[in-house]
Amino acid sequence: MSLDLKVKAEAFRAMHVGGTPLVLPNAWDAVSAKLFEAAGCKALATTSAGIAYALGWPDGERIPRDAMVAAVGRIVRAVDVPVTADMEAGFAKDVEGLAETVRAIIDVGAIGLNIEDSEKETKQLYDIPLAVERVRAVRSAAERAGIPLVINARSDVFLLGVGDPSERVGLAAARLNGYRRAGADCLFVPGVRDAETIGALVRAVEGPLNVLVGPGTPPVAELQRLGVARVTIGPAAAHAAMTVVRRVGEELLGRGTYGFLEGAITYPEMNALMGKRRLDA
Amino acid sequence: MSLDLKVKAEAFRAMHVGGTPLVLPNAWDAVSAKLFEAAGCKALATTSAGIAYALGWPDGERIPRDAMVAAVGRIVRAVDVPVTADMEAGFAKDVEGLAETVRAIIDVGAIGLNIEDSEKETKQLYDIPLAVERVRAVRSAAERAGIPLVINARSDVFLLGVGDPSERVGLAAARLNGYRRAGADCLFVPGVRDAETIGALVRAVEGPLNVLVGPGTPPVAELQRLGVARVTIGPAAAHAAMTVVRRVGEELLGRGTYGFLEGAITYPEMNALMGKRRLDA
Repeated sequence: MSLDLKVKAEAFRAMHVGGTPLVLPNAWDAVSAKLFEAAGCKALATTSAGIAYALGWPDGERIPRDAMVAAVGRIVRAVDVPVTADMEAGFAKDVEGLAETVRAIIDVGAIGLNIEDSEKETKQLYDIPLAVERVRAVRSAAERAGIPLVINARSDVFLLGVGDPSERVGLAAARLNGYRRAGADCLFVPGVRDAETIGALVRAVEGPLNVLVGPGTPPVAELQRLGVARVTIGPAAAHAAMTVVRRVGEELLGRGTYGFLEGAITYPEMNALMGKRRLDA
Repeated sequence: MSLDLKVKAEAFRAMHVGGTPLVLPNAWDAVSAKLFEAAGCKALATTSAGIAYALGWPDGERIPRDAMVAAVGRIVRAVDVPVTADMEAGFAKDVEGLAETVRAIIDVGAIGLNIEDSEKETKQLYDIPLAVERVRAVRSAAERAGIPLVINARSDVFLLGVGDPSERVGLAAARLNGYRRAGADCLFVPGVRDAETIGALVRAVEGPLNVLVGPGTPPVAELQRLGVARVTIGPAAAHAAMTVVRRVGEELLGRGTYGFLEGAITYPEMNALMGKRRLDA
């Protein structure tokens, strides 16, 4: 497996360069992963929020790390494409804990991970030296495991609204460039949606930029013109699915009708999809 | 817990009488369960297919029993309403295996289960004496556990197309009435959708009838007039959700747009829903 994982990680890293944004749907269980793979994705991300919801928790490292890792493993086993894991802020403050998280996701076959630079309880950014040290710890742990893990270092400068809006590109870039030098492969800034700021970030960061889709985000073609390397949707697909589940419940328990049956994927289709073996399984 | 479970099981049993059909949405993970509960259901069923898909398997007892039971447990822990488990044909042929399954789902807090009368590999009905014996084994195991488990005995006469169509109501009723005498609380016939046959089954079976919703099934109000006691939707809500997931993948990877964001449930809403504690937790 180790050789396979190395090859998979390198293949995934290579998808971040070349001018065409890598579009990663975010899966939360085996079936969402299978459906995205069938739709033609080259690789998959996970969504920490979606996984947490499915297993009974809110987002934000409330779910035990082992349960999150096991869910990542089920997604990895469901598909042939590379899978990068949203492990939030690494489920640990200290570098030893981060190393355990890295080891755990490599053990279940993930070839990348997100690492955030703010603390869950306080919603404060880690000081830059510590944040950089945390990225370095992830890289070291991956090296010790012998896997060229693709590290997506995330800065929460925009998400938490740190500093004056006019300063945020600079604040985020200073952090992200530090993370890049510490071993990050891709630099992730959620909370940015306007073309101007995205363009400024692309110019300011010294590595591939990951943009998170939300209301108002320019379409992928426009993100490509802006120089974005990677596009993810966070829990948006999970939210779309859950919106439908809510609607099914309301229709069934309210009017007592079954409009939700119309145009739906069928039982034989689903069983055929889920019964398809992985190439290497 | 044992006393709570007894009370819950009795409350659930009482929902099967009184003229208003008990409408049970079928959940496959903690979040679908929470959404159905928020929509106002009085109780929940699970869907074996939906659970299997989410964890990486096709339907039909391909998933290990322990994984299915654990998923039922996560659903139980997510909600306050009673939960009945779709355990297919009990994940066992012999009565000892059935007893283990009963014990396992009671241990995770389910207060009811489905038990089917056909064999998974052969897709053949069990002979009547054995099928009756299997229901009796489920009842005995529940009694040994001290829980008045609500047994939903299912006959696959219509699903498998056994016998001449004109004889099926009689064939199914003969089986179901045997299961009823062996300790079943509710009698389930999937594969029947027309009002005439449903009405004939209501008259022919000596207990509450469970109808499975599919294309063409009369609305709940009409099922009530026909005397149906319980209405379930199997994997229909899971299929509706998965249809949306497929559409999200196709839009994102195809046109590179994000129409799936429109009108979707939000991150704060989802976290509030998932953060809500159970009344007894």
